Amino acid sequence: MANYIFGVDVGGTTVKMGLFDKDGNVMEKWEIPTRTENHGENILPDIADSIQGKMSEKGIAKDNVIGVGVGVPGPVDRDGIVHRAVNLGWAELDLKKELTTLLGGMRVEGGNDANVAALGEMWKGGGQGHQNLVAVTLGTGVGGGIIINGEIMTGATGAGGEIGHIHVEDEETEACGCGNFGCLEEYASATGITRLANRALKASDKASVLRSGEVSAKTVFDAVKAGDELAIEIAQQFGDYLGKGLGVIAGIINPEIFVIGGGVSKAGEVLFDYIKPSFEKTAFHGSRGAIFALATLGNDAGIYGAARMLL
Amino acid sequence: MANYIFGVDVGGTTVKMGLFDKDGNVMEKWEIPTRTENHGENILPDIADSIQGKMSEKGIAKDNVIGVGVGVPGPVDRDGIVHRAVNLGWAELDLKKELTTLLGGMRVEGGNDANVAALGEMWKGGGQGHQNLVAVTLGTGVGGGIIINGEIMTGATGAGGEIGHIHVEDEETEACGCGNFGCLEEYASATGITRLANRALKASDKASVLRSGEVSAKTVFDAVKAGDELAIEIAQQFGDYLGKGLGVIAGIINPEIFVIGGGVSKAGEVLFDYIKPSFEKTAFHGSRGAIFALATLGNDAGIYGAARMLL
Repeated sequence: MANYIFGVDVGGTTVKMGLFDKDGNVMEKWEIPTRTENHGENILPDIADSIQGKMSEKGIAKDNVIGVGVGVPGPVDRDGIVHRAVNLGWAELDLKKELTTLLGGMRVEGGNDANVAALGEMWKGGGQGHQNLVAVTLGTGVGGGIIINGEIMTGATGAGGEIGHIHVEDEETEACGCGNFGCLEEYASATGITRLANRALKASDKASVLRSGEVSAKTVFDAVKAGDELAIEIAQQFGDYLGKGLGVIAGIINPEIFVIGGGVSKAGEVLFDYIKPSFEKTAFHGSRGAIFALATLGNDAGIYGAARMLL
Repeated sequence: MANYIFGVDVGGTTVKMGLFDKDGNVMEKWEIPTRTENHGENILPDIADSIQGKMSEKGIAKDNVIGVGVGVPGPVDRDGIVHRAVNLGWAELDLKKELTTLLGGMRVEGGNDANVAALGEMWKGGGQGHQNLVAVTLGTGVGGGIIINGEIMTGATGAGGEIGHIHVEDEETEACGCGNFGCLEEYASATGITRLANRALKASDKASVLRSGEVSAKTVFDAVKAGDELAIEIAQQFGDYLGKGLGVIAGIINPEIFVIGGGVSKAGEVLFDYIKPSFEKTAFHGSRGAIFALATLGNDAGIYGAARMLL
């Protein structure tokens, strides 16, 4: 009976790695740089070297390793094939097959990093105890991962759970990074909140602490907590969009729980005060019982979820 | 090796039944009335009697039956428990257990009728060859069923795929049947199209064949085909809403195919001309490749899908 799992989260600058036991206890965490030159041809060999180095350092035999899970910033289909990971320089790549070969036949599973992080939050984070979960990451963009019956919903081409780009506003005139207009990400990401704030500051002459100093998702929610009226209006706009978006997701997926993470979620449960009114107004009654929780694993969600793919 | 499957689709007035071989060929189809009195207590015994009657009529032994699949108009969870089926008079009911007992231990599977119909269209209808499918039924209301990797997405409480009630319009002032405002069903169902048409007729003084005679989804699309300008505007509104709704679903689910059925779909592929522009404008690029097809099984989708649950 094998005991160990490696969880790997490949980012554009560093690869996070973790050695887990099969109960999900992390024995050790470390990072290596992501070498993206030459179409990222060194990334998988570097990962394999690092894993094999850790195994000899710890005296772990190959047959005592259940396998290696890898999260990647790009669409990964159910066969473990990556379809373009721009930040890594990868075009189409058979991640599962190539890393298995590099590791002398070890079992490898691969997934999209946002989906894998959702699995991590289900296993050991804010979604523990739930098998039907939507993870929402409010960072520079808005990412998402959907877990159905304990498994990642990959989608037909690996684009399942791209909830940052669902359409929530018909009247938007500025394009989203994806090229569309009115994506959730334009209002609910850190960048989106800043944009809403700058718009509100321009449109109103109300006094606000936001008029002096930096305008960011953090300063907006700090001001909300201090009772700043204009900041509260901005938070309401943010919450109206995000609540509406999650209401639509609830009607389609009918999840048990939404787990909210990413930099914006550092504001804490105050976010829910602004999300829930529009969620409850727009979600179908049969799905309105979904609960809201904060993500708890932070940047480690990826390595946890990557390891969990092996179980 | 057992050879036969019964597929049962329980409606508010009739129960449709089918005897299938395991390749999905229907050997016989018939109906019995749905007796909803006394909280629908006769419905399952009537179904069991009808199945056993058919078995003795055909000389089919119990061990030659793979099992019985049942679609029900209400939420059914993954354990086969029905949570309220208003049209049948059922409160919570352990469908799987009760019908298995009535059938002397035969295997039974249960599911929501819209989800089961989606499975039917995947197996033998407009979605053949696809494992990730969204079925959209444009009838009196808008129903939906989502198939992920060949299996029904039930959701946490059996409300998965309730796509008729996703929010698509912020400014709506008339309530949907569900109590919310601006649900997809208010614009894309037969009733919704009639409503859009009556609004358009009132708001404009443009000449239209719709000004004389009945206004319905059928007459609207007949007029569209005849080149009626006002009807075309109505179809555009319908298509804008439905395309936007399906665009959102695509971003979340990333399906291979949308299969469009229900009474409204009798208008044919002309529907796609009105759905696709807003779908392509709003769907995330990674999911925009989903194809559109018409449902082909009509009212038989339920019995096909019910049978398919056993395989």
